[in-house]
Amino acid sequence: MPTRLMAGLLALALGMNAVAADRKFINAEQGSAAQATRPISDAVLVGNTLYISGHLGIDPATNRAATDPAVEAKLVMDRVKHTVEAAGLSMDDVVSIQVFCTDLALYETFNNVYRTYFPHGFPARAFLGVNTLLRGSHFEVLGVAVRK
Amino acid sequence: MPTRLMAGLLALALGMNAVAADRKFINAEQGSAAQATRPISDAVLVGNTLYISGHLGIDPATNRAATDPAVEAKLVMDRVKHTVEAAGLSMDDVVSIQVFCTDLALYETFNNVYRTYFPHGFPARAFLGVNTLLRGSHFEVLGVAVRK
Amino acid sequence: MPTRLMAGLLALALGMNAVAADRKFINAEQGSAAQATRPISDAVLVGNTLYISGHLGIDPATNRAATDPAVEAKLVMDRVKHTVEAAGLSMDDVVSIQVFCTDLALYETFNNVYRTYFPHGFPARAFLGVNTLLRGSHFEVLGVAVRK
Repeated sequence: MPTRLMAGLLALALGMNAVAADRKFINAEQGSAAQATRPISDAVLVGNTLYISGHLGIDPATNRAATDPAVEAKLVMDRVKHTVEAAGLSMDDVVSIQVFCTDLALYETFNNVYRTYFPHGFPARAFLGVNTLLRGSHFEVLGVAVRK
Repeated sequence: MPTRLMAGLLALALGMNAVAADRKFINAEQGSAAQATRPISDAVLVGNTLYISGHLGIDPATNRAATDPAVEAKLVMDRVKHTVEAAGLSMDDVVSIQVFCTDLALYETFNNVYRTYFPHGFPARAFLGVNTLLRGSHFEVLGVAVRK
Repeated sequence: MPTRLMAGLLALALGMNAVAADRKFINAEQGSAAQATRPISDAVLVGNTLYISGHLGIDPATNRAATDPAVEAKLVMDRVKHTVEAAGLSMDDVVSIQVFCTDLALYETFNNVYRTYFPHGFPARAFLGVNTLLRGSHFEVLGVAVRK
């Protein structure tokens, strides 16, 4: 593996461990009750790449998905943004998104909210109609971001 | 983060910004009507990694999925290939694929088409039975490629 | 692309091909009948990143998913672990997981098994309710690991 060998030689020369990929568990809502019980990090940053968990558009008042799908779409994207920014990245760094949706009739409703989060170019994306999502959600959104 | 520090020091020495991850939005069908309205890039290339959007096997005559699933499977894989090549990579560079399928009885129909695209080794893959996909599709295919 | 340029210059200096991303197809059960016919690698290692296929919790006696979901959850996670370790990585290297599940009522059953595999911090994760999975499965688990 020439790249790693080269990195290793350089690290040796510079007294550093270049082959270790640093990682950081991101928990934007650390300390919340939900956080304490779920076996999930909101995201994991490894090197420059941020792996973002599936986020939901939960209404804090009810702990269920917001009843209005447009509100839910905004809540879910706000939570993704919150996590991305908690990791020190921005939405411009997002390169890939998967949207899981329980009702494809909500495609445009979701898109109208979604496009406002990416003024500088759209990530790769898949939009997939699934059967059910946790806590009555219409949308679950996960993705990958890479620090510029 | 020793790797980035090292890269930063080298970049400084060489007058380059080594920590910036270049990214390029790939739109293989740029200019089409669908492209203009969808908040999606066909793929995003960041460094050597290409994040490939969910692709469908749409018949251009009807703007719906091809009615014959074998034809649809070929259309969807051809579109993935088109996007990968538009980014300057080849199908040999694909390392990971997710296939979402509305009818698991089409597993072998899909596989028979799919295997012809990877003569030199198969990507990691998941094959998942979902409820519905956009535009009457039986298949949606997304993935990741890494330039050799 | 300054990073690649720099890597290329260094590689030239050191007589190595630094821009080539090595890749290795991982087949933890190489030689099995299933392996011979499926157009899938169990995982692909490219550089330090391991793309892990969707794994199922198949009972070898029946070649179907285990009937007890808790047993199935353990089987699927054991198989993921087996693949990760066959690639020379460990479960501590896993950064991202997607769980596809045909019955969200099994959420806690799955979590109780799942959390035992990650004593040192949880990967990013999505938990998605899909319609059907291959071979009568309740769970399909895929992911990404990055070598430390």
